[in-house]
This record gives sequence, C-alpha cells and structure tokens, in this order.
Amino acid sequence: MQATKRMTVPETVLAVMRKTNELFHTEVVTKKNFDALDRIYTANARILPPGAPMVEGREHIKSFWKQAIAAMGATSVKLTTVDAEAAGDSVVEVGRADLTVAGGQVVTVKYVVQWKQEDGTWKWHVDIWNPNQ
Amino acid sequence: MQATKRMTVPETVLAVMRKTNELFHTEVVTKKNFDALDRIYTANARILPPGAPMVEGREHIKSFWKQAIAAMGATSVKLTTVDAEAAGDSVVEVGRADLTVAGGQVVTVKYVVQWKQEDGTWKWHVDIWNPNQ
Repeated sequence: MQATKRMTVPETVLAVMRKTNELFHTEVVTKKNFDALDRIYTANARILPPGAPMVEGREHIKSFWKQAIAAMGATSVKLTTVDAEAAGDSVVEVGRADLTVAGGQVVTVKYVVQWKQEDGTWKWHVDIWNPNQ
Repeated sequence: MQATKRMTVPETVLAVMRKTNELFHTEVVTKKNFDALDRIYTANARILPPGAPMVEGREHIKSFWKQAIAAMGATSVKLTTVDAEAAGDSVVEVGRADLTVAGGQVVTVKYVVQWKQEDGTWKWHVDIWNPNQ
C-alpha cells in the first residue's frame, strides 16, 4: 500500500507500539502464548474479524486467536505500520499484516487499529482487518 | 452485534453523524449522486475495502463507490452506529451496515470509521469494513 504519511505520533510512542506489535508475532503467533494478549489488547478491546461477528473483551479475544491461529496453521506474522495518527488519548493506525500460514503460504491483510494506553503501555483497543484479495 | 456502550460522544455530534450516514443512503446508494461523497468523506480520506487494496483520497473513493455500487446492484443501505467513542478531534465509530443489493438480497457488514470535522460537518476519514460471514 502506498500512503500519504500523516504520522503525527511521537517516535517514543511508535517505539512502544512496535514492541506491542512484535509481542503478537513472537509470543502469540510463534509461541502460542495466548496470555501475552494481556499485554497487547485492552481489557475491553474489540476485534472485528472478517467472516465472523465482532468479539468483545480480552478473554473472548484470547479464545478467538487460539482457535484462529490453530485453524490457519499460522507460524509467523509481520506487522507493518503504514500510518499512525494521534487522536486525543488514542492513536489510529493503518497497517499491513503478512501472516505465514500452513505450507509456508503468506496471507496479506490490511488493518485499522485504535490504540489506547493501559497499564503503562500502548495496546490495541479496536482491531479490524480484511484481505486485499 | 451486542456491544458494551462507550458512547462518549455528545448527542449533538451523533445527530450530525446520523445526517452524514443518511446522505450515503439517500444520495449515494439510492440516487447514485457520487458528488455527495464530498459531504461524506474528508478530502484525504482512506477506505480499506475487503478484497481490494486501500483507496486514498476522495476522488479515488468516488470512483471506487461508483464501480462497487454498480457491480453489487445496491439500491439501499442502512447504517447503524453500534458505538461511538470520542478521541481528541476524532470520533471512532463501530457500526453495522445492511446493504440491499441485486435481487433484494441483504448483505450485512460491520465497520470501523474514524470521523473528523471538515467544512463544518463530521465526515468519514478512515473507513474499513468486512463481512460477518
């Protein structure tokens, strides 16, 4: 995706966001450590997955990812911030995820995440994605 | 969708948002008046449609909807705000769209819209959606 950058988020915040995104790859998708989602999603986060109804609350989100990652045979994910815009106590991020699934196939999706601060870090508060194809 | 309400947006703003949403139904989907999108999307808005790459800028968004509405044979849309949360100069809305397409079939999608003020009204600034099934 080519995108006009709005990037109104300080580098210090972007650095924390990159750490959160990296946790999703290393802990959740690679190691299947679903309790790491406590450090990734706010307690009352929402995800809006394609092909399924909205899921509310971190515990339900854990169940979703446990099932979805197993179903896809996902082993790795690369999250790339295309743009991030400050909005009050939130950040709105537009991004791209490249997910390696069963057989080594790479599935690319685009996403929008509303970030919020919780427990001294930045977490995903609303998370929606869809495929490019 | 059942949702815990966050609704931190004043009723005066919600009323303007409802008018913008209603324009999308009456002018764009029903009357095919694509110039009405000037009153719905910010000039540098982005849409992230399922099955297609991100589209940036209102003129490209007009082309997208012209093509997509014709391809679906869409005649009507009902937009329902599930929740709306204030975030600085933005509002983050989670919603549901019921689109009547060719043959009278109703297609339901869920969406997230980041709203911003432009030209004295509230408009869609980032718009992403996906199907429930």
